[in-house]
Amino acid sequence: MNEIIKRIENIVGCENVKVDRDEIEKYAKDETSSVKESLPLAVVFPTNTEQVSEIMKLANQYSIPVTPRGAGTGLSGGAIPKENGIVLSLEKMNHIVELDLENMAVVVEPGVITDEIQKLAEENGFFYAGDPASSESSSIGGNLAENAGGVKVLKYGPTGFHVLGIEVVLATGEIVNFGGKMMKNVMGYDMVRLFVGSEGTLGIVTKIILRLIPKPKYSAVLLTPFKDMQTAVACVPKVLCESGILPTSIELMDRYSVEISSKFLNETIPQQGADCHLIFEIDSLDRESLTRAYISLGEKLQQMGALEVYIADNRHQKMKIWKFRKAIAEGIIAFRPKHCMEDVSVPIKTIPTLIKASYEIAKKNGVEVLNFGHVGDGNVHVTFLKPDGMSDEDWEKSMHRSLTELYQVTVDLDGTMTGEHGVGLKRKDFLPIFMNKSEIELMKKIKKAFDPNNILNPGKIFPD
Amino acid sequence: MNEIIKRIENIVGCENVKVDRDEIEKYAKDETSSVKESLPLAVVFPTNTEQVSEIMKLANQYSIPVTPRGAGTGLSGGAIPKENGIVLSLEKMNHIVELDLENMAVVVEPGVITDEIQKLAEENGFFYAGDPASSESSSIGGNLAENAGGVKVLKYGPTGFHVLGIEVVLATGEIVNFGGKMMKNVMGYDMVRLFVGSEGTLGIVTKIILRLIPKPKYSAVLLTPFKDMQTAVACVPKVLCESGILPTSIELMDRYSVEISSKFLNETIPQQGADCHLIFEIDSLDRESLTRAYISLGEKLQQMGALEVYIADNRHQKMKIWKFRKAIAEGIIAFRPKHCMEDVSVPIKTIPTLIKASYEIAKKNGVEVLNFGHVGDGNVHVTFLKPDGMSDEDWEKSMHRSLTELYQVTVDLDGTMTGEHGVGLKRKDFLPIFMNKSEIELMKKIKKAFDPNNILNPGKIFPD
Repeated sequence: MNEIIKRIENIVGCENVKVDRDEIEKYAKDETSSVKESLPLAVVFPTNTEQVSEIMKLANQYSIPVTPRGAGTGLSGGAIPKENGIVLSLEKMNHIVELDLENMAVVVEPGVITDEIQKLAEENGFFYAGDPASSESSSIGGNLAENAGGVKVLKYGPTGFHVLGIEVVLATGEIVNFGGKMMKNVMGYDMVRLFVGSEGTLGIVTKIILRLIPKPKYSAVLLTPFKDMQTAVACVPKVLCESGILPTSIELMDRYSVEISSKFLNETIPQQGADCHLIFEIDSLDRESLTRAYISLGEKLQQMGALEVYIADNRHQKMKIWKFRKAIAEGIIAFRPKHCMEDVSVPIKTIPTLIKASYEIAKKNGVEVLNFGHVGDGNVHVTFLKPDGMSDEDWEKSMHRSLTELYQVTVDLDGTMTGEHGVGLKRKDFLPIFMNKSEIELMKKIKKAFDPNNILNPGKIFPD
Repeated sequence: MNEIIKRIENIVGCENVKVDRDEIEKYAKDETSSVKESLPLAVVFPTNTEQVSEIMKLANQYSIPVTPRGAGTGLSGGAIPKENGIVLSLEKMNHIVELDLENMAVVVEPGVITDEIQKLAEENGFFYAGDPASSESSSIGGNLAENAGGVKVLKYGPTGFHVLGIEVVLATGEIVNFGGKMMKNVMGYDMVRLFVGSEGTLGIVTKIILRLIPKPKYSAVLLTPFKDMQTAVACVPKVLCESGILPTSIELMDRYSVEISSKFLNETIPQQGADCHLIFEIDSLDRESLTRAYISLGEKLQQMGALEVYIADNRHQKMKIWKFRKAIAEGIIAFRPKHCMEDVSVPIKTIPTLIKASYEIAKKNGVEVLNFGHVGDGNVHVTFLKPDGMSDEDWEKSMHRSLTELYQVTVDLDGTMTGEHGVGLKRKDFLPIFMNKSEIELMKKIKKAFDPNNILNPGKIFPD
């Protein structure tokens, strides 16, 4: 192996290969709780596509597992390497290649932080609509690898909807390009969308063309407590249909997630004890239209059972509500480091059933649970929490039972295991609960066709 | 073969198998001009998924080519069968399976005409945003197979953006399901998007879950003549950025397409002799906002060089403009039956270069040409026309030369061969102009993995 490390150093330069334990320790994990860490042999930092290509040729020749990695903010263990493999970190491929306003597109390297793209677009009067909650820390390459969702999917779609084209290094080191600076392309299979969400198992994406759209100028946020989940969720399709409004976001927080956020921020929100709160965000071309829209939306919400509607239409108020929503995850990490955050998606109507079941599952297995997420697109972050005093061993067992039961309920509701975090390492053994043998085999055939020596992020997605 | 036809009759019933020449003649072609017709051995009309599965098992066992077919309105020869094969017509699988308003989804069989879905959604206060120009005659299965575009892609995306889930019969007869009534799903590869646009070469889609969104209540159409193409196209990104408006459509008609439509309808439009006309459609939640938007858009267009801006905000006026735009294709068919309608897409900024090149290519090769299309997403229907008096043989040669040259220009502009019509039979030999060997091989590997005996719509997409 030392010989191979030397050859990699020849490709990228000594300064771009790390092997010392203290330097590579952080690459043994990502931000997923409850998965096993694993130290790679080396972490390699290529700075251009040709280097990635050379590395892949070498890896393919010697069957070295390669785990591509963005900013390491993943929530499925997708970036956790093999012990006998290398991490291919794309941190140094972090340049904006081209801002092409005349074609409403931006070309970026995978290591660019998503927030940088959002800001660049805004400064130029445009809008990059991909917006995962982690936009300030996650990289666009990681967003692409997981087809990241976030809080604007309802109106604008997930990351994949904004990707116009990609440059990819294949397992064999070949460099291919699909798509371009056009919204439409039906020349052969939709290879762009196939690489999007493939969790680094089909190729290394080394360049990304993203779509920019005109920036919506105004937005407002509505915070609405409900006395019960059923009423809250049932009003979603009705209020959208009657008002004609397609919000950017409809978020849900159950009372337990409100509690943890409140504790973390040391702040309260109106009607804090309500069974759940919804947050609506709407955007608009002009202020008058926005005002009419939120008044109409607010009235309908009250008719349909909202206990109250709090409207935020200035920057400070809006940020306050979003800060509260985003502090749920921070609160979980701070107060309940031993937890298991899930990412199931179900048809909207069935969300109350799912959440009710999560309470029952938690109770039965002696753990705690809270629920929050993106109700507008059916994506609920059911989060199991280790109770004080439970042994780690018992927690592992209870968590596994709880997950299995949660997934079974999700299947029964015609839902999916993961809406935006990916299967990765964490969920791969549960895949057969959701997919039959033919469905899994079909995907495996793609993996095999693209990566015959199974060197690209091996051990992810598919059960052993 | 007679034995096999009998076994197919046993599966679907005698009444659902046609072999007589006069009954199957129309299945030898689709609406693509300038491709060779080809009569199948039989046309089979399954009425449910299980029948499709049984047919595929048989076909796979005996290596019988199967060409799936929707309404036969395709524009790339994708539905033209093999002479030794069967056509699998999905015309009788034309039921709305479920309208699920609470989950903002509709489940349909592939043979449903797209217009029926649009109307059903509207009657219930929702909106199905897929809208190919052929929506009154094309089927949703065909739309899916070609990832059909149309006039609302700019704001709402192509067909694939509205497909939430699919049931598919594989080449082997296995029935698989991917996706569901959720907007987000990252459980393994994006199989839904892989089948979308695969032109019937990877599986037979037998059920489709489509997304519904709230219906935008108001719309207006702006007709704007320009004295030159360059000015017209250059204003597109600028006017979007400055106004913040994302139109549903921005259509382009060059003076020759305006002429043919005018002749077909025996109507004129304002400033008919202008170098080109753009058509903008915008939609909105409320009338006041719409009015402000079209006034703002109109003012900016005039500042940027529009000769005039004609605003249509009532149903009659809007329909008149759209009728004029849609009559281009009808005029071509009526007056110039020998033609070759292309579908290249290029970065918006380069459209004037593309169109200028099309004029030069036509002149050089002694043919005529007109250009129209969806400028907002870079998709231009360059259409070569056989001049009066040219022999069929000369036309074939000139057309082939013109196409080759057009595609070369498109590649040089970083464009794609087809934005919404597909590769099919018509364009497959030109694929190597646009894709290198590795890129084509990668797609072929998928085809091979899914359909090892090459029975699913063989002879399409890939060059021989």
